[in-house]
Amino acid sequence: MTEETDNYLDIVNKIRKIHTNDPNVFIPLHAPIFCGNEKKYLNECIDSTFVSSVGPFVDRIEKEMAEFTGSKYAIACVNGTAALHIALLLAGVQENELVITQSLSFVATTNAIKYCNANPVFLDVDLTTMSLSPKCLEDFLTNETIQIDGKCIHKSTNKRIGAVVPMHTFGICADLSALSTICKNHNIPLVEDAAESLGSFYGDKHSGTIGLLGTLSFNGNKTITSGGGGFILTQDAELAKRAKYLTTQAKEPHAWKFYHTEIGYNYRMPNINAALLTAQLEQLPKFLKSKRAIANEYKILFDSYSDVTFVLEPENQTSNYWLCSILMNSQENRDAFLEISNKHNTMCRPAWELLHTLPPFSNEILGSTLENSYYIQSRLVNLPSSPNPRYW
Amino acid sequence: MTEETDNYLDIVNKIRKIHTNDPNVFIPLHAPIFCGNEKKYLNECIDSTFVSSVGPFVDRIEKEMAEFTGSKYAIACVNGTAALHIALLLAGVQENELVITQSLSFVATTNAIKYCNANPVFLDVDLTTMSLSPKCLEDFLTNETIQIDGKCIHKSTNKRIGAVVPMHTFGICADLSALSTICKNHNIPLVEDAAESLGSFYGDKHSGTIGLLGTLSFNGNKTITSGGGGFILTQDAELAKRAKYLTTQAKEPHAWKFYHTEIGYNYRMPNINAALLTAQLEQLPKFLKSKRAIANEYKILFDSYSDVTFVLEPENQTSNYWLCSILMNSQENRDAFLEISNKHNTMCRPAWELLHTLPPFSNEILGSTLENSYYIQSRLVNLPSSPNPRYW
Repeated sequence: MTEETDNYLDIVNKIRKIHTNDPNVFIPLHAPIFCGNEKKYLNECIDSTFVSSVGPFVDRIEKEMAEFTGSKYAIACVNGTAALHIALLLAGVQENELVITQSLSFVATTNAIKYCNANPVFLDVDLTTMSLSPKCLEDFLTNETIQIDGKCIHKSTNKRIGAVVPMHTFGICADLSALSTICKNHNIPLVEDAAESLGSFYGDKHSGTIGLLGTLSFNGNKTITSGGGGFILTQDAELAKRAKYLTTQAKEPHAWKFYHTEIGYNYRMPNINAALLTAQLEQLPKFLKSKRAIANEYKILFDSYSDVTFVLEPENQTSNYWLCSILMNSQENRDAFLEISNKHNTMCRPAWELLHTLPPFSNEILGSTLENSYYIQSRLVNLPSSPNPRYW
Repeated sequence: MTEETDNYLDIVNKIRKIHTNDPNVFIPLHAPIFCGNEKKYLNECIDSTFVSSVGPFVDRIEKEMAEFTGSKYAIACVNGTAALHIALLLAGVQENELVITQSLSFVATTNAIKYCNANPVFLDVDLTTMSLSPKCLEDFLTNETIQIDGKCIHKSTNKRIGAVVPMHTFGICADLSALSTICKNHNIPLVEDAAESLGSFYGDKHSGTIGLLGTLSFNGNKTITSGGGGFILTQDAELAKRAKYLTTQAKEPHAWKFYHTEIGYNYRMPNINAALLTAQLEQLPKFLKSKRAIANEYKILFDSYSDVTFVLEPENQTSNYWLCSILMNSQENRDAFLEISNKHNTMCRPAWELLHTLPPFSNEILGSTLENSYYIQSRLVNLPSSPNPRYW
């Protein structure tokens, strides 16, 4: 392995030069940048005394997020997991139903399904998108389900399929056109987990705006952050109204009376977090520009290595390149690369453990082989991908 | 009613004078005050770039909250509802079990029980504490439950009683000594919903530190706020460790691997909210001092009205007087008072609708008469109670 190891050290040094001239500084996987109105808006927020569940920054960020994504409605939430939980409830997912998703995802996707007391069905991903495979979905629905009274029923368990949830892995969208058609044909709501794909477009549509509902995340590791935060996107006025209602403890509007018609959630985004996000959103275009430039540098770099493949955005998509990724030619080499890069202050990371292999999800239904998921899981490396002022 | 109405207007004007010399300014029920290091710490937080799930302010506020409350362990959460949800799970509450609580409470108390897929049993409150009645608890447990293999089983449903959850109403603690003894005798964990009682002491012990677990809230309407925030208090090292684990998506510690052994929650307090709370906690002593002074002014004021009773802290307690309260002599007069006070820019509010009367909880078990709960619900008025610089 000595030759390969030398080779990898060479790659790591070239990766470092894309981000910094400092040979020793630690390069994180993805760090937020605050070079706009963050302090100004936070100070304004304190001066206003509105820091909590209501406030002008919540209204403003909801309006501006709708504008940026082109979504008719955008509802601020406390985080992306909470947003997905509510989106699933709004899509109609009920106790003991099944929700189809991918095994190659962050654990929040399936946790949200479990919060609805529903169960995930894991399908494979495509190699091009690393996201839910339309072919696997079509095969599963055709072979394993039937339509009864307009509902899609899983034959062997007699459970309804409540939703299909693709996750747009590392900012690359699933094949939304195909998934959307299949979901319509089988009467299943499509809910997009767009936690990683703010700024990613499928054709000319922003991720999260093609399904019945979509959800975004603004955790600290995302392209822009509110500390903790999420959003629900929808084009349906009634769902938007219910999203606000359920995330604000299902309290009926009244000057002083506390009346709640159903079980709600404390899932609001506080005004102080909205203030931070408002400042961050203003800078998103230049962050995205720099992330594309970094992706391009990576592409040029890895074009000269035959044993490493840089993952490019598919045709008809504009990726946010949230986390740039490469595929190594074996798990052994992936591990060797991770060892060397992290040792040399250059944070790299493999994909998540496949969800169906984790103890809490080890008894769920596997609706297809998971060949591509295993392939990607064993070979992928996420590269440092923070926005960088040198590229804007 | 003209005479009474004149009388009430007189009271409202006297209430106003306790808070302000301005005859027209709107007086909120409870507004936060930011006159310390709030901006400084928020700006430090931005400079550090640690705004999200980890950061020095999270560590610091956990240490300082433990010190202030005298709790061995204090774990920061995204809000009080999330804190209570996790506390119930940690206490061992499982699906289809029963959790005893009071009907006179904010909806979050029972929502948290429902998130565990458990059901509330509603008991009455005492008139002196407005919180869970030990007598009702003892009667219910003696008459309606039996011990089987060290578990307390509700005879008619065969369900285990998973926890007892008193809520310290408006900052006045339940009779924790009696409740604690009863819970021990019947092998049931005591979980204190101390959302409203930061700074309230039962004897020399801070609310939330007597039960197996206790939870705090730092929503914008509380004595101090983090925008949104909560805390779990416990004296048990293992529970504290699990609280941190479950609130951080149950992720096993590893430099890059994502491994989760159970279903976790995205319930962390972001560092930016912790920064705000750190500054607020520094000011808590003077806030509490001014709130006691205001309560004393109210006491003096209402001593001269025989038809209105100011709710005092019981013996052996120090209340934070989060929301000062009066009891009117009828529901009709309560409504008349609310009408007049709110019309005159002086925000007052009744207690919450009793939880067992709300649609999502209308089929739950009532474990006692709810005579005192109805009495308080129909007569209580919360008075403006914000901390006020004129009293510190």
